[in-house]
Amino acid sequence: MIKNRKVGITDTILRDAHQSLIATRMKTDEMLPIAEKLDEVGFHSLEVWGGATFDSCIRYLNEDPWIRLRMLKEKIKKTPLQMLLRGQNLLGYRHYPDDVVELFVKKSVENGIDIIRIFDALNDIRNMKKSIEVAKKSGAHVQGTVVYTISPVHNNEYFVSLAKDLVELGIDSLCIKDMAGLLTPYNAFDLVTKLKEQISVPIQIHSHYTSGMASMTYLKAIEAGADVIDTAMSPFALGTSQPPTETMVAVLKGTPYDTNLDMELLSEIAEHFKKVRSNYKIDSVVTMVDTAVLNYQIPGGMLSNLTSQLKEQNALHKLPEVLKEVPRVREDLGYPPLVTPTSQIVGTQAVINVITGERYKVVINEVKNYVRGLYGKPPAPINPEIKKKIIGDEEMIECRPADLLEPELEKAYKEAGYYLEKEEDVLTYALFPQIAIKFFQERQAKKYQFDHNLAGENDKFKYYPV
Amino acid sequence: MIKNRKVGITDTILRDAHQSLIATRMKTDEMLPIAEKLDEVGFHSLEVWGGATFDSCIRYLNEDPWIRLRMLKEKIKKTPLQMLLRGQNLLGYRHYPDDVVELFVKKSVENGIDIIRIFDALNDIRNMKKSIEVAKKSGAHVQGTVVYTISPVHNNEYFVSLAKDLVELGIDSLCIKDMAGLLTPYNAFDLVTKLKEQISVPIQIHSHYTSGMASMTYLKAIEAGADVIDTAMSPFALGTSQPPTETMVAVLKGTPYDTNLDMELLSEIAEHFKKVRSNYKIDSVVTMVDTAVLNYQIPGGMLSNLTSQLKEQNALHKLPEVLKEVPRVREDLGYPPLVTPTSQIVGTQAVINVITGERYKVVINEVKNYVRGLYGKPPAPINPEIKKKIIGDEEMIECRPADLLEPELEKAYKEAGYYLEKEEDVLTYALFPQIAIKFFQERQAKKYQFDHNLAGENDKFKYYPV
Ligand SMILES: [Co+2]
Ligand SMILES: [Co+2]
Repeated sequence: MIKNRKVGITDTILRDAHQSLIATRMKTDEMLPIAEKLDEVGFHSLEVWGGATFDSCIRYLNEDPWIRLRMLKEKIKKTPLQMLLRGQNLLGYRHYPDDVVELFVKKSVENGIDIIRIFDALNDIRNMKKSIEVAKKSGAHVQGTVVYTISPVHNNEYFVSLAKDLVELGIDSLCIKDMAGLLTPYNAFDLVTKLKEQISVPIQIHSHYTSGMASMTYLKAIEAGADVIDTAMSPFALGTSQPPTETMVAVLKGTPYDTNLDMELLSEIAEHFKKVRSNYKIDSVVTMVDTAVLNYQIPGGMLSNLTSQLKEQNALHKLPEVLKEVPRVREDLGYPPLVTPTSQIVGTQAVINVITGERYKVVINEVKNYVRGLYGKPPAPINPEIKKKIIGDEEMIECRPADLLEPELEKAYKEAGYYLEKEEDVLTYALFPQIAIKFFQERQAKKYQFDHNLAGENDKFKYYPV
Repeated sequence: MIKNRKVGITDTILRDAHQSLIATRMKTDEMLPIAEKLDEVGFHSLEVWGGATFDSCIRYLNEDPWIRLRMLKEKIKKTPLQMLLRGQNLLGYRHYPDDVVELFVKKSVENGIDIIRIFDALNDIRNMKKSIEVAKKSGAHVQGTVVYTISPVHNNEYFVSLAKDLVELGIDSLCIKDMAGLLTPYNAFDLVTKLKEQISVPIQIHSHYTSGMASMTYLKAIEAGADVIDTAMSPFALGTSQPPTETMVAVLKGTPYDTNLDMELLSEIAEHFKKVRSNYKIDSVVTMVDTAVLNYQIPGGMLSNLTSQLKEQNALHKLPEVLKEVPRVREDLGYPPLVTPTSQIVGTQAVINVITGERYKVVINEVKNYVRGLYGKPPAPINPEIKKKIIGDEEMIECRPADLLEPELEKAYKEAGYYLEKEEDVLTYALFPQIAIKFFQERQAKKYQFDHNLAGENDKFKYYPV
């Protein structure tokens, strides 16, 4: 007989689900009317912040991400609010110095975050250490993360050993983060079984439906002892998003893993999000299973980005070549998991290698810095020939990358001082200086009714699911 | 250690997948270019015929279903071709007399069908007996079917007992047919386990993705010993269709259940069907998980049909009432599984009950005949009050419904003789007299270049997934 072991559900509808399906464009106005009902469900937590939401708020939605968080916290009083943090990258795309990390994490908690999921694209623990430390000190539940990927140097023993290192840093729970939907059900079973033998903190599984496996993966992970799964309310589920909440609740009902969530209430909530969904155009192809993931292990969002990069160069016919080049670049660079920002770095270099016709003839700055060790320690050594070609005889750094960074907060206060209305604004500026200024100017303009001659939106940064 | 036990895959792309997602409109021309590649894969079988394809060919596509079958057989030489047959209903919506059943089944096999899956909407074995007998005599592999549903009188013991009765009729394998996607993973595990203890023929699972559970259900069914699963190539998978073939193949790869199918070859085939898919408009909502199934146990296709019936009456606002009325009508009628033709019968009566404002004030003919027993024996007794209201003191028949039917073939030969070009044509006429004549006339017109003053398409019969 299996002991009853209630499974927790983290619903991602307010963060990852819309980041994955509608490029993080859901508005606070579309969230607030249903927030109290979401709070009634009894979710383990609601993922509502972090990832690309911060950037999207100020870049596209003209919304203050801090205010969004406060407004959600006001309506969601019982359910823990969760965010995704890219370790030393915070919610940006480069490493920030410790003073920025410290204040950012502290303010996130102060404004309402209860659970912080912290990851690093290279699984380099040094890049997570600072934020874990501050998050703990701020009183948050700290969830350490193992970024899942497939390569000759990644296996379940590697992930277990990484998890143990994270536990030693004092994490409260562990997330297996499968951003590309590569974790198979039976491997998940094996991995969770091994983790349960070695660590005692709760285990949460985060996967994406891209390859169509995620629901099965959750089921087998649960059987092996996983405690919490990440799902999305059905109108924003499947495709590059998470498995549907209602489905997983229905599947576990009456089993030892029963979530005890109310299907009727979930249906009411789904009705709201069906309407929200109808405000956006979701191509039905997005919700198709993506065989490219299964064959090339390329995350869904990355594939669509490669496609659009090639289109811009009138070189879409080179996609098959690029799909073969991506794993080669990844191998050269020591098999980084493909997740923000490494997915963008590897993808862009692969496109350039194919288009120029000579590998690494042109090298983007990010790859140079990566090879210098500025993103952290790659899972495997970098191909020495490639390294030589890119940085010559220069030595890779050995220290924690952030140790090389000067504090930035004071400078940020000075530069943005004129616009700051609350302490959090300096963080918005520190993370995204240019966009923040534009955002602040619009805010002032609205307040004082004058015009800063606002520039048009021209930044095309693409988000990948994380 | 689990013994290696290769799982077979029946791909439904040429039948159920497009029946479920694009109302059975895929053309032979869209199938033939990929047929030889499909044959290379090594599927357990390809479902290519039966269900609504026959009707759709002559009604909408102006194609001869017999010719389609022959053309597919010419290209698919190694892989067994499979069809779905509604027992005594054949591919129509009423019972046909035994002489029609005999010739139809015989001709299906002669024209290329290797495996015939036979079901009856009421699980009334008397309605399957004749076609099972003829199929066996014709040399086909006969797959008996347990139609899965949920009700106070349906449980796994009931399904196992039904399966044993089918085995006694000599079936070669058993199908659990979950047309609404209601079979949960853990109940599938239990059901297959019980079946494996009691019967020794191979067990095949057929489910639909409507509720999002089907892939998990397959996995647990396989663990319990299921031998073959029904999947659809990814471009026509999910939603009201089957789980994606590629996903299930990937999930089982390297496990004791490995299908040994080649992912590269599947990808090539998927590319073809992506193009085919782009010829049709598939609303992305169709591929959303349908919570109505989970809450009301109403199959996806039936829901969309109820919606359009109500729209025609300008009464869409009554949908919630109708959703509550459907299970009541079903209860009144002794809990028939909702599958063609009972889904249409129950659904239409429910709409009428709500719209007239008095239950069974108006009763459709099909319900009258159902209550008379002309569709077979309902799983539970019909509500006596309702029965009285509908047929008064008339007695229900006790015999096999088809025993009351006069032979029809001779008459069909006489009536359609002028148009018959091959023996199979008389069957086309016997099944769908009016549409067949129109179809024959167009065929003649094309051949002899004259015009029969063809009527426009006005029949709006809706298909449900089966
Ligand atoms: Co994610
Ligand atoms: Co079906």
